[in-house]
Amino acid sequence: MNIDQLLAQIAQKRPDLVEFRLDRLDNLTAVETIGQKKTLPAIATDKAIREPSVSRKILLAAASSSFEYVDIDFASHDAKRLVEECRAKGTKIIVSSHNFNGTPSQSELRDVFNSVREMEADICKIVTTATHPRDNLEVLNFVQEKCTEAKLVSFAMGSLGTPSRILSPVFGAEFTFAAFSQDSRTADGQLSIEDLRSVWHLLGIQ
Amino acid sequence: MNIDQLLAQIAQKRPDLVEFRLDRLDNLTAVETIGQKKTLPAIATDKAIREPSVSRKILLAAASSSFEYVDIDFASHDAKRLVEECRAKGTKIIVSSHNFNGTPSQSELRDVFNSVREMEADICKIVTTATHPRDNLEVLNFVQEKCTEAKLVSFAMGSLGTPSRILSPVFGAEFTFAAFSQDSRTADGQLSIEDLRSVWHLLGIQ
Repeated sequence: MNIDQLLAQIAQKRPDLVEFRLDRLDNLTAVETIGQKKTLPAIATDKAIREPSVSRKILLAAASSSFEYVDIDFASHDAKRLVEECRAKGTKIIVSSHNFNGTPSQSELRDVFNSVREMEADICKIVTTATHPRDNLEVLNFVQEKCTEAKLVSFAMGSLGTPSRILSPVFGAEFTFAAFSQDSRTADGQLSIEDLRSVWHLLGIQ
Repeated sequence: MNIDQLLAQIAQKRPDLVEFRLDRLDNLTAVETIGQKKTLPAIATDKAIREPSVSRKILLAAASSSFEYVDIDFASHDAKRLVEECRAKGTKIIVSSHNFNGTPSQSELRDVFNSVREMEADICKIVTTATHPRDNLEVLNFVQEKCTEAKLVSFAMGSLGTPSRILSPVFGAEFTFAAFSQDSRTADGQLSIEDLRSVWHLLGIQ
């Protein structure tokens, strides 16, 4: 499938926003082509573990190529400088924090939130892992409390975390993530965009 | 449709428990017939506003007729005595509290919980009304906290309360309610049993 076909398929699903994971790209031309041709607001992110200099180049290319948002991991090398450089190119910034071990207490979540906010992100993305169903409540309580202070995206990853993915926008999160299709899910607990819409419809959302 | 046909249709949907609302019945024979013929564990309840003596007779007939549970409204006339009389006939008791105005604070919910528990119900049913999405979180937080102290059923009614109906069992509620079909929904925000199962399936529940 070429880029035109991919973009056409994505547009058919009518998302509000598209996240492009640029993990496998290392040539700037491809990033620029996606940026020029895409028809929907888009986030550029790079979750590959690789040379910081390569990742930086890719994200800076996205920031220069009509991506509305660049997602920068809070823990990445020299994140603060990368935020500033991307912002200088005119893109908005999502600063993301991922906890792959579990869901911390409210007070720890607040500490993470404060650290992420200090990066002056346009959107704070704070993602945890659900190791118990109650972690959904922890995250949703956190969203409800903090969404008045900053634009926030937050949910718990993992198969137990699906309720938080579905419901976080109800409690004030800016948006949530769904997969393009069942086969393209990038994380446990993530629904396809069709399934997410089905659940929202049954819940009377949207 | 006669009672046999109704019971057969209900059994086809494979619920764990069936609530029979005896609101329109005033003859004890019909209650006894349902009690004898039903094939699934059942709750008898009467939500009609009518002479307390009639309601009492209906619920006592259910308690004597193989219904596993009788649901007695906390606010009903002489509720404590009715609980004792039903229990003496061998049925288990659900004591239910309904707040049609809204969802009170955690401390008020705890007060209601304590009052209901004092009736020595086998299951405490505490139902509020969602006037804002956050009321779902209030109820779910409450369920999570109190389900270790007593068997608890709790959710928020109203079209905004559907998330609490779907998720309360995840956080420790004994069960939740769904309608036999789309057309037989008895409350705003209630899903049909098929839709509830669809959502649970997507959430990875059961």
